[in-house]
Amino acid sequence: MFITDNFLLNNKIAEDLYHNHGKDLPLIDYHNHLSPADIASDRVFSNLAGIWLSGDHYKWRLMRANGIGEELCTGEADPWDKFKAFAETLPQAIGNPVYHWSHLELLRYFGIDKLINPANARYIWDTANSLLKNGEYSAQKLLRRMKVETLCTTDDPADSLEFHALIKEQGFETRVLPTFRPDRAMNISDSASFREYIRLLGDSSGTNIESFDHLLLALSKRADFFAKMGCKLSDHSLSSVPDLQYTYTEIREIFARVLSGKDASPVEARQFSLAVLTEMAAVYASHGWTMQLHLVALRSNNTRLLKKAGNDAGGDSIGDEPQAKGLAGFLDSLDRQNKLPSTILYNMNPSYNEVLASMAGNFSGCMTGKMQYGAAWWFLDNKAGIERQLETISNFGLLGRFIGMLTDSRSFLSFPRHEYFRRILANYLGSMAASGETDNDIASLSEIYCNISYYNAKNFFNF
Amino acid sequence: MFITDNFLLNNKIAEDLYHNHGKDLPLIDYHNHLSPADIASDRVFSNLAGIWLSGDHYKWRLMRANGIGEELCTGEADPWDKFKAFAETLPQAIGNPVYHWSHLELLRYFGIDKLINPANARYIWDTANSLLKNGEYSAQKLLRRMKVETLCTTDDPADSLEFHALIKEQGFETRVLPTFRPDRAMNISDSASFREYIRLLGDSSGTNIESFDHLLLALSKRADFFAKMGCKLSDHSLSSVPDLQYTYTEIREIFARVLSGKDASPVEARQFSLAVLTEMAAVYASHGWTMQLHLVALRSNNTRLLKKAGNDAGGDSIGDEPQAKGLAGFLDSLDRQNKLPSTILYNMNPSYNEVLASMAGNFSGCMTGKMQYGAAWWFLDNKAGIERQLETISNFGLLGRFIGMLTDSRSFLSFPRHEYFRRILANYLGSMAASGETDNDIASLSEIYCNISYYNAKNFFNF
Amino acid sequence: MFITDNFLLNNKIAEDLYHNHGKDLPLIDYHNHLSPADIASDRVFSNLAGIWLSGDHYKWRLMRANGIGEELCTGEADPWDKFKAFAETLPQAIGNPVYHWSHLELLRYFGIDKLINPANARYIWDTANSLLKNGEYSAQKLLRRMKVETLCTTDDPADSLEFHALIKEQGFETRVLPTFRPDRAMNISDSASFREYIRLLGDSSGTNIESFDHLLLALSKRADFFAKMGCKLSDHSLSSVPDLQYTYTEIREIFARVLSGKDASPVEARQFSLAVLTEMAAVYASHGWTMQLHLVALRSNNTRLLKKAGNDAGGDSIGDEPQAKGLAGFLDSLDRQNKLPSTILYNMNPSYNEVLASMAGNFSGCMTGKMQYGAAWWFLDNKAGIERQLETISNFGLLGRFIGMLTDSRSFLSFPRHEYFRRILANYLGSMAASGETDNDIASLSEIYCNISYYNAKNFFNF
Repeated sequence: MFITDNFLLNNKIAEDLYHNHGKDLPLIDYHNHLSPADIASDRVFSNLAGIWLSGDHYKWRLMRANGIGEELCTGEADPWDKFKAFAETLPQAIGNPVYHWSHLELLRYFGIDKLINPANARYIWDTANSLLKNGEYSAQKLLRRMKVETLCTTDDPADSLEFHALIKEQGFETRVLPTFRPDRAMNISDSASFREYIRLLGDSSGTNIESFDHLLLALSKRADFFAKMGCKLSDHSLSSVPDLQYTYTEIREIFARVLSGKDASPVEARQFSLAVLTEMAAVYASHGWTMQLHLVALRSNNTRLLKKAGNDAGGDSIGDEPQAKGLAGFLDSLDRQNKLPSTILYNMNPSYNEVLASMAGNFSGCMTGKMQYGAAWWFLDNKAGIERQLETISNFGLLGRFIGMLTDSRSFLSFPRHEYFRRILANYLGSMAASGETDNDIASLSEIYCNISYYNAKNFFNF
Repeated sequence: MFITDNFLLNNKIAEDLYHNHGKDLPLIDYHNHLSPADIASDRVFSNLAGIWLSGDHYKWRLMRANGIGEELCTGEADPWDKFKAFAETLPQAIGNPVYHWSHLELLRYFGIDKLINPANARYIWDTANSLLKNGEYSAQKLLRRMKVETLCTTDDPADSLEFHALIKEQGFETRVLPTFRPDRAMNISDSASFREYIRLLGDSSGTNIESFDHLLLALSKRADFFAKMGCKLSDHSLSSVPDLQYTYTEIREIFARVLSGKDASPVEARQFSLAVLTEMAAVYASHGWTMQLHLVALRSNNTRLLKKAGNDAGGDSIGDEPQAKGLAGFLDSLDRQNKLPSTILYNMNPSYNEVLASMAGNFSGCMTGKMQYGAAWWFLDNKAGIERQLETISNFGLLGRFIGMLTDSRSFLSFPRHEYFRRILANYLGSMAASGETDNDIASLSEIYCNISYYNAKNFFNF
Repeated sequence: MFITDNFLLNNKIAEDLYHNHGKDLPLIDYHNHLSPADIASDRVFSNLAGIWLSGDHYKWRLMRANGIGEELCTGEADPWDKFKAFAETLPQAIGNPVYHWSHLELLRYFGIDKLINPANARYIWDTANSLLKNGEYSAQKLLRRMKVETLCTTDDPADSLEFHALIKEQGFETRVLPTFRPDRAMNISDSASFREYIRLLGDSSGTNIESFDHLLLALSKRADFFAKMGCKLSDHSLSSVPDLQYTYTEIREIFARVLSGKDASPVEARQFSLAVLTEMAAVYASHGWTMQLHLVALRSNNTRLLKKAGNDAGGDSIGDEPQAKGLAGFLDSLDRQNKLPSTILYNMNPSYNEVLASMAGNFSGCMTGKMQYGAAWWFLDNKAGIERQLETISNFGLLGRFIGMLTDSRSFLSFPRHEYFRRILANYLGSMAASGETDNDIASLSEIYCNISYYNAKNFFNF
């Protein structure tokens, strides 16, 4: 098996950093999409397809590229057939992060050091499934095994957060915190769905939402509640922050119109979304939260797939909308009023690495690492993508202040991605030192290494 | 000479892959611009300038950058003077693909292992020219020497394909197939030229083209004929697939107006072009053809050069139009109707590598490798460009399903570009295995290697 | 200390190139922002903060990212406190060019081979400050110490160039030449400031500027004067060359309107700017000057910082406006009239590397290296950025004709950036030769190496 102790570690300094400094640090996973209900109920999974393939659009995309039909991806096919189809696909995927992740996960969680391929498929299936039944693979036990100290889920403002409360009551040693993600409050494109959401949010916040000001009030109340529940971050996903102007009066009028049953134009919808984002950013600042902006995704490109398998099923890809001007205007408008929260800019198109990393540098100050150029995200969460993100941070800012990795995952088996990141980071720092591009004093290198791996996030979010 | 047996092969696995597995496989060149007439007539070339510099805009651009006047590039200067000017230029071009290609071609076709520079120019000129006269350098013999099993030329729908028929009659062992490229049927910007082409296409297809529906009928008839002649691919070159809406009624009206002697607006011209592309894509799907989209070129930027030397003379460069939304809408509109043919997306701006490779992944399924992120094209057909294309495929899809290399060339001497690609591919795979990033089992590596080098294209196109 | 003799030189050929060929060549710094007044007065600096931190937005950005307040960056804090804050920041900046530059500068100018960190801060401060007082650190002596043969400052057309005259009179052995940068003559966005400038330029040129034609006349007179003073280059900074049309009549009208006290629209402002650029380009061509275009910057994004600390204080970042079409149209319009000067395209967004480098290749000819893809600029002036610029030139043109490095700096201590560049260039060439990708004959390699390091610029500008 190619995953050895020194997987991805190509020099002695890198080995030292990883094995003697970073490997055993706990994990902080400050952004993911795990189900709080699954954690609260300490969910158990019945087979490898259920815990590993189900919900994983990364794997489905590879399987589809191998000509495998939807039945075996998101459909109702037999779990073993699904796994077999995955095992047939993976040997074609060398160089893909899923190839690395999958072998790493199989090894770390199940102790299976076999290549995933048709010849080994049955053995892997049987071995893993029998382990899944031994009582050591429940949601909470999986998190404990990976030493997850803190994790932040992604939640709608209207969510009751009852499962977060329950998890806390249970005394589960991993801190499970909510993240405020008001997507539905920003999206008036589908006006019927928006109106439905407004009712939901009204109920949840005890607010009768009849105007844009009421909407902001309701969101603000929910933010207060999220804060009480330990929330430290908000989250937004946008193809770009639009370079658009608007007045508060216009936004009020748009809201009133949509609430009355009419539609907004595409431009109005973007203005509205920008207005909510701007107002909420000030709320985040007032709570001392960090605002996460996930930028440059292009979602739901395949209508057939969307109808068949829903959102987040693998029909999303990378956008190419201009980013710089709209984002600059947005951040500046907040900064001018002293209402800019600490911010993480996540980027999905590597062609914008430099635009976004240099943009972050325009608004730093007052707080250490206030403006973060976020970890390699989604399609870029692979070896080359992580290396480029580290190189970009190094060239455009302070690598030593980077708050590091998160999984962004929907799976309880994806925490070895932190190991993957720590190995790549160790190799990056080790290579720099070994080639004489920086001091090779292990004390200062390991301080930077451990900070990025763990302590920076702990301090930055005050966990 | 720097081109040794292990040129570009930097580890033992790479050497093994290339020398023992890939080197002797036949060539499939599924996209080029060779002249079927030259093949049919088994053309012989009288000197090195004629066979090597003539028609080669890559070389002209380098010569111009060296301050060499047009007379010695596309002009009427003495052939030896042209070659001498090229030999003066090349030493300045280290790191350029033309530097590699030229030395490789000189070695493989003429057995000359000298550096191309002023000191060696006369020797190379005399030696190559004397070989050109020995009867072993005709078009067909050059293709045979390189073991070209199948090649696909690029042809206008109105073309009679008489030379393809003749080549087949001759029993030439290289299969020479046409490719359907309806550029002129899509381009109404120059309305006079378009009307002339409509007459030509009408004659060729035996159709009286008086409406847009007639145009589609005529193209469809020609596609039937091309299919009979063995065509398996279509080809289109676009700065982008525009993000535009249109109705069939509007397109009919635009066509009628242009046919009547008037002009279309720039936006109408793009709508028209998109409409023809969309309708023809369905035709390609019905024939089981593969649709090739060559994206992001910016053509004919230098008016003086265009007037003096015509199209494809070196005044083209790389564009930066947004790609994602228009392309997504186009592919989705076909997929929704189940009319999306297998498709190759070729990209000329490396900043769009990730956009286009991830876009391909949105529409795969049903057929192995249906959506291909195409080989490094034109300006990107160099070592760094090829490596990045391989890395992009690896990160965003299934490297093992990649259908590999094509020359896109106008020259009978450019087939060593397949060797160049196979060396770089061997090195890419070998480096991955040698550094422990994938299994290093030579059996599975060589299977992937040989598939990309040859078998994938053979199976994909059913050659 | 990590900066050894072979810093950045990773193979024997690289070492040979740098130590035996490039190291001792004089410097030509054909673009920077040094103050001619400081050179003429042979300015002496009182402490390390004054000579090293003051005016350096690169360092300020890093300090701000470390949470350091403006008082210690651009403010009135105690010089030692500023330096201490910088020394606290730098250890977090491994991998950043400022980390390399700062250690290199400390070593080359002050002979201090200590890491810059809190522990060493006091020693460095005391040592450097005591050296600054020994009479060997005046502006002219610093330039002499670095063997600066020629340097080109950046000057407004209305500037009297009195200090350039004075420097020449002094017989200072570094040739100090002006560069023509008519930013204020192009920018009508702030119409009041523009009118003020028109008066200034009118006085300077002895022209009563009452029309657009008068403006061109005044600029042309100043260009004549600059030429007499040894000017060889012009300089322009643009987010992009806009893809806009205009007529001379429209521009005259816009000018007249703005002169009369009214404003121009944003589009009119860009048309006007393009018109001045186009007219002046023809003037540059007539003088045999080189036109420098600095493209893709996005300036003054942080309003608070702009108000507090002014322009060029660290609120600028990288833009993402489309470049290709506007630039192609502009260059072509000049080329068609045979008025295209030799041109350097500097790029600040690496996603446009290939667009701009291939664009340069569309318009070369007649003069060796006429169209240059300029050295890695500003945010890209780092190891990765320089390597990519070299790779881009290699892939898209003639590396051997590249005119090489300039500092673009405001500091008398930044000339080791030439050493930095020469080391990276030596390593780039050496690696290519060592891995067998080009001939490894040291005579031809060193010729290319020395040409890029020094001789190409000397010949290109006829210094």
